[in-house]
Amino acid sequence: MRQPEPEPQSFDRVLSSMCTEPHPDARAAAERFLATNPGDPATYESVAELEARAVEGLATLAAHSAPADAAGYVTSGGTEANVQAVRSARNRHGGSDGNEVNVVAPASAHFSFTKAAEVLGVELRTVPLDDDFRADVDAVAAAVNDGTALVVGVAGSTEYGRVDPIPELAAIAEEVGARFHVDAAWGGFVLPFTDHAWAFADAAVDTLTIDPHKYGQAPVPAGGLLAREDAALDALAVDTPYLESRSQATLTGTRSGAGVAGAVAAMDALWPDGYREAAERAADNADWLADELADRGYRVVEPELPLVAADVPESEFESLRDAGWKVSRTGAGELRVVCMPHVTRSALRAFVDDLDRIRR
Amino acid sequence: MRQPEPEPQSFDRVLSSMCTEPHPDARAAAERFLATNPGDPATYESVAELEARAVEGLATLAAHSAPADAAGYVTSGGTEANVQAVRSARNRHGGSDGNEVNVVAPASAHFSFTKAAEVLGVELRTVPLDDDFRADVDAVAAAVNDGTALVVGVAGSTEYGRVDPIPELAAIAEEVGARFHVDAAWGGFVLPFTDHAWAFADAAVDTLTIDPHKYGQAPVPAGGLLAREDAALDALAVDTPYLESRSQATLTGTRSGAGVAGAVAAMDALWPDGYREAAERAADNADWLADELADRGYRVVEPELPLVAADVPESEFESLRDAGWKVSRTGAGELRVVCMPHVTRSALRAFVDDLDRIRR
Repeated sequence: MRQPEPEPQSFDRVLSSMCTEPHPDARAAAERFLATNPGDPATYESVAELEARAVEGLATLAAHSAPADAAGYVTSGGTEANVQAVRSARNRHGGSDGNEVNVVAPASAHFSFTKAAEVLGVELRTVPLDDDFRADVDAVAAAVNDGTALVVGVAGSTEYGRVDPIPELAAIAEEVGARFHVDAAWGGFVLPFTDHAWAFADAAVDTLTIDPHKYGQAPVPAGGLLAREDAALDALAVDTPYLESRSQATLTGTRSGAGVAGAVAAMDALWPDGYREAAERAADNADWLADELADRGYRVVEPELPLVAADVPESEFESLRDAGWKVSRTGAGELRVVCMPHVTRSALRAFVDDLDRIRR
Repeated sequence: MRQPEPEPQSFDRVLSSMCTEPHPDARAAAERFLATNPGDPATYESVAELEARAVEGLATLAAHSAPADAAGYVTSGGTEANVQAVRSARNRHGGSDGNEVNVVAPASAHFSFTKAAEVLGVELRTVPLDDDFRADVDAVAAAVNDGTALVVGVAGSTEYGRVDPIPELAAIAEEVGARFHVDAAWGGFVLPFTDHAWAFADAAVDTLTIDPHKYGQAPVPAGGLLAREDAALDALAVDTPYLESRSQATLTGTRSGAGVAGAVAAMDALWPDGYREAAERAADNADWLADELADRGYRVVEPELPLVAADVPESEFESLRDAGWKVSRTGAGELRVVCMPHVTRSALRAFVDDLDRIRR
């Protein structure tokens, strides 16, 4: 017996998500490729070709000014990309026989690194942040040792949108023979339009997470893992009997062709000018909201990338949720607003108006 | 600069895939929920509600005649479900301190178990099959020990479509205190219409993989993991700061609402009569093809579930691929045809006609 169909949410009041409304071209491409599986490239040949184009597009973004020749694949999301980066580094790490392999990451790293450590049986060494929520370089230097397979830097942190000192962290990793991973899952489609050092051209980055289904305006599921060298992916390969292809470096098996096709269509439509405009609009919106909240006496964490955190009391937060605003909190309890492409200035005005009404 | 758009393949000549054309209702639902993320249920509430319905639907299938109250979630596919079953069993396994935990699986188990073992750092003990490609019960009994966290049975093997002796394997697992997992990723939507013992009502099954995006006629990505007890999922939970939900038991983070909505729509449309008809049609097609191939003198592995393997020489296999047929081979080199819902009798007739032309 059929039950009434629930409706997908409107994005009008979604201020908590790091995903967004897909670009119309991306939606159309995803719908065309809904019934394909890039995990079986010998059967689904055209989507395999599209995946090569997706990786080329992502590598172009991540290359900044350097040539775009990174290896990689379209993942189910940032979590898979981060887990795979840890797995690759673990598998490539020599010289720690008898010792547990460790991964050193700032406290701001996404919880997928906790998941990765648990799944992969490696020790996660979480190091403190500096006063502005970035990885503390001295703390990272003190935490690494011979057993360190991977150092993680975050370029656009989940809670405060901060960019770690990537070149400094890369240098620390290099000193102890560890790999270096940058998690730009959320920031990767904004960072090319800033002065931040974050990608292959800026430092000795081994692997990088960059998700089309966040600021890239592709539909879910379209994450991205890039690697400077093929060897990073080779370390993930498992034999695939019965598929007419040699091996598989992904964590999942069957994968979504819709995500791959959507990612390519979004990048075709938006790189670079559309992404630049979206990044500038998002930055303006974040600055505007930060000012409005500061004017009302809230303690605001100054936005670096387009994400605003502010010390809004619990009761006001709950009232905002009751009013239909999808907002979330940092671990420290601050209100957190992610200025994604679907978040318009007029939505933010309505949000601030509701906040004023609640405070009255 | 835009490149010409490749077209998604037609399913007309796809005989190698365990995925299929989605049901029209499932495609429509997937398109409506393309921009949702069940990994963030506090933001995307309606898709979280749909996921509960998807799990209920899967549990109904897997319950056979018993009540449908299994726990579970919609995975990215069978690989994630199998990896998670191994991870849950590993995490719940006590008493093997100092010894490596092991998983015992038949040689017919999908390569995702190889991947799981490598990722999770457990030993995979692969045991031989009997003469008809099913798990050899004595070999499984000989392989288990105190370190065995999980015994795996396959209900619809990837290469030959065989169903292992599930109750016997469950009993072996119980004897050594191991969990028992059934991989019915491909077979799960066909088995309820057969006499096979395969699911919760038939044996002490702890976890089960059953994929809507295979015979369930849902679009990718929609796999399914079911568990008899909530504790199996609790063993996978990782804390999720900044999401307004407590924890996350999935392997991936952001997930596809399209897959979830598509799975629900497919089950609403097809359970049970539509699935029964599809299963019967597929079985008839497999029997027909097996007879045609046997008539031509090929050694055929008699179909149990709707999958035909036959000893077609390499040169003929290559000619079939050249003629546009998407076919694949077993590890032993046999031609392998998977009779999915999109595979019609007339397509199989055309396939046999092409084979006759090639043999001339």
